[in-house]
Amino acid sequence: MSLTTVQQVKHFGGTLTKYSHESSTTQCTMRFNLFLPRAVEQHAKVPLLYCLGGLTATEDNFPQKSGFGAKAAEHGIALVFPDTSPRNVGVAEAEDDNCVGYSAGFYLNATQAPWEKNWRMYDYIVKELPQLLENNFPIDPSRTSIMGHSMGGHGALTIFLKNQDRYKSVSAFAPITNLSRSPWGLHALSRYLGEDRSTWAEYDAVELLKHLAGEKKLRNDVNFLIDQGTGDEYLNPDHLHTYDLVETVKKLGLTSQFDIRFHDGYSHGYYTISTFINDHIEHHAKALGV
Amino acid sequence: MSLTTVQQVKHFGGTLTKYSHESSTTQCTMRFNLFLPRAVEQHAKVPLLYCLGGLTATEDNFPQKSGFGAKAAEHGIALVFPDTSPRNVGVAEAEDDNCVGYSAGFYLNATQAPWEKNWRMYDYIVKELPQLLENNFPIDPSRTSIMGHSMGGHGALTIFLKNQDRYKSVSAFAPITNLSRSPWGLHALSRYLGEDRSTWAEYDAVELLKHLAGEKKLRNDVNFLIDQGTGDEYLNPDHLHTYDLVETVKKLGLTSQFDIRFHDGYSHGYYTISTFINDHIEHHAKALGV
Repeated sequence: MSLTTVQQVKHFGGTLTKYSHESSTTQCTMRFNLFLPRAVEQHAKVPLLYCLGGLTATEDNFPQKSGFGAKAAEHGIALVFPDTSPRNVGVAEAEDDNCVGYSAGFYLNATQAPWEKNWRMYDYIVKELPQLLENNFPIDPSRTSIMGHSMGGHGALTIFLKNQDRYKSVSAFAPITNLSRSPWGLHALSRYLGEDRSTWAEYDAVELLKHLAGEKKLRNDVNFLIDQGTGDEYLNPDHLHTYDLVETVKKLGLTSQFDIRFHDGYSHGYYTISTFINDHIEHHAKALGV
Repeated sequence: MSLTTVQQVKHFGGTLTKYSHESSTTQCTMRFNLFLPRAVEQHAKVPLLYCLGGLTATEDNFPQKSGFGAKAAEHGIALVFPDTSPRNVGVAEAEDDNCVGYSAGFYLNATQAPWEKNWRMYDYIVKELPQLLENNFPIDPSRTSIMGHSMGGHGALTIFLKNQDRYKSVSAFAPITNLSRSPWGLHALSRYLGEDRSTWAEYDAVELLKHLAGEKKLRNDVNFLIDQGTGDEYLNPDHLHTYDLVETVKKLGLTSQFDIRFHDGYSHGYYTISTFINDHIEHHAKALGV
């Protein structure tokens, strides 16, 4: 698994580098951006925060627009910004749909044709990418956390819930919380996973939360930080189902573990993320011990 | 001169709004983004900082990627992000050239066909836009400053030098400092202004500086803050002529007024701007008295 450097710039005293590599998971060339803080000069290994992008995003949107740099540099945290789907794999159905295909991986492993060979972003984020980063960079695999935006917020929440021992902390901006009830999810999950909806729950944060709480398997030492603008066009009509998450959290008696912050008038996009990014980096820094 | 609201979002407690309007100067529909800080709720009028974009930019690049928000909100400064050229005016020559035409206004008033009717970004920034902002928003016209990036850095420096009493302060990221000697300038100025190079000097920061210093007309109470990455692809080969500016400043005995900071390895783009934007906002805040 060799890495090719596409571009490198300096940022807040560290480096932001775009890499490409041949992925055995998605069977195509994948790209990601990696921020390594100046702290790598002083420490053998630094903690790592995964940042998952939303629909229509590539590996560039989050690092370009989120304003992550100042606090990441201050705390000496590396951040990785993966792409959001396989690319250029010759699947015609992937071209013309904003919600299925390119930029719409939904951080799951597809089981249905024509998606099942390449659309395996869950395994890419949870298995291949961590191994690649650990093998090539001064990353401490025992200190990783995860966050994301919109579809990437769904990714961060579901990947965290399915791998609670792997991440120190989790947070999300305007996440899709109940994917199998969202119009996006109804459209995408039926194509990626098929019409048997029993398979959908494992990629649905609200359903995973209910299941884990019912089994008493939810870690009680982790706090979920979620920021949601009330001016978000996807909050009403209900694509994100944030209020359902709030209700579920209440019913499950988990309010002390969830900090779901509604911000008056804020939108779905990066102007909201950049306003509150420092709180998220601080949230993760505390859990990562830096 | 009526304004149409294209989009509005919240950002760091204030609002970022995209407006469009019919410009009498450029004879087309122009757009700009305006950040109004929360401070407008407490103050009758707030100071204003002009932020001029570079080649290929629109009114969106600087606000999306610069990270201006935190410090602007803290100091209660409004920022305006104009577009970089006229748009959709049916000039065929404007379509196929990255350095002349759309997104390449160079903040000058063109005198040659087919540009002279619409490519009047100097008058737009110095005359029409200030009047429009003053008429429609709680902006204090006696407290304005100007900064820019690359071609916009050229714009900020030249517009400041030609209107020293209008702005409290000036700064630039990776500015084109000596446009009439830059390949970009040779290409653009010959088209916009014609081959008579005596007309070029008024849109060339180094030439303006020499002239003003020679006439002893340079304000001595203003400091120029300029950030330049040494990894900037346009520094060598010499598109920006930053070292020439340094030499000129030395020869003119103006080193105490120029803070030209070279940053090891930093690139031409917004990852550099966002690293140092806070210093620029602080620089302007001090001059604006906030």
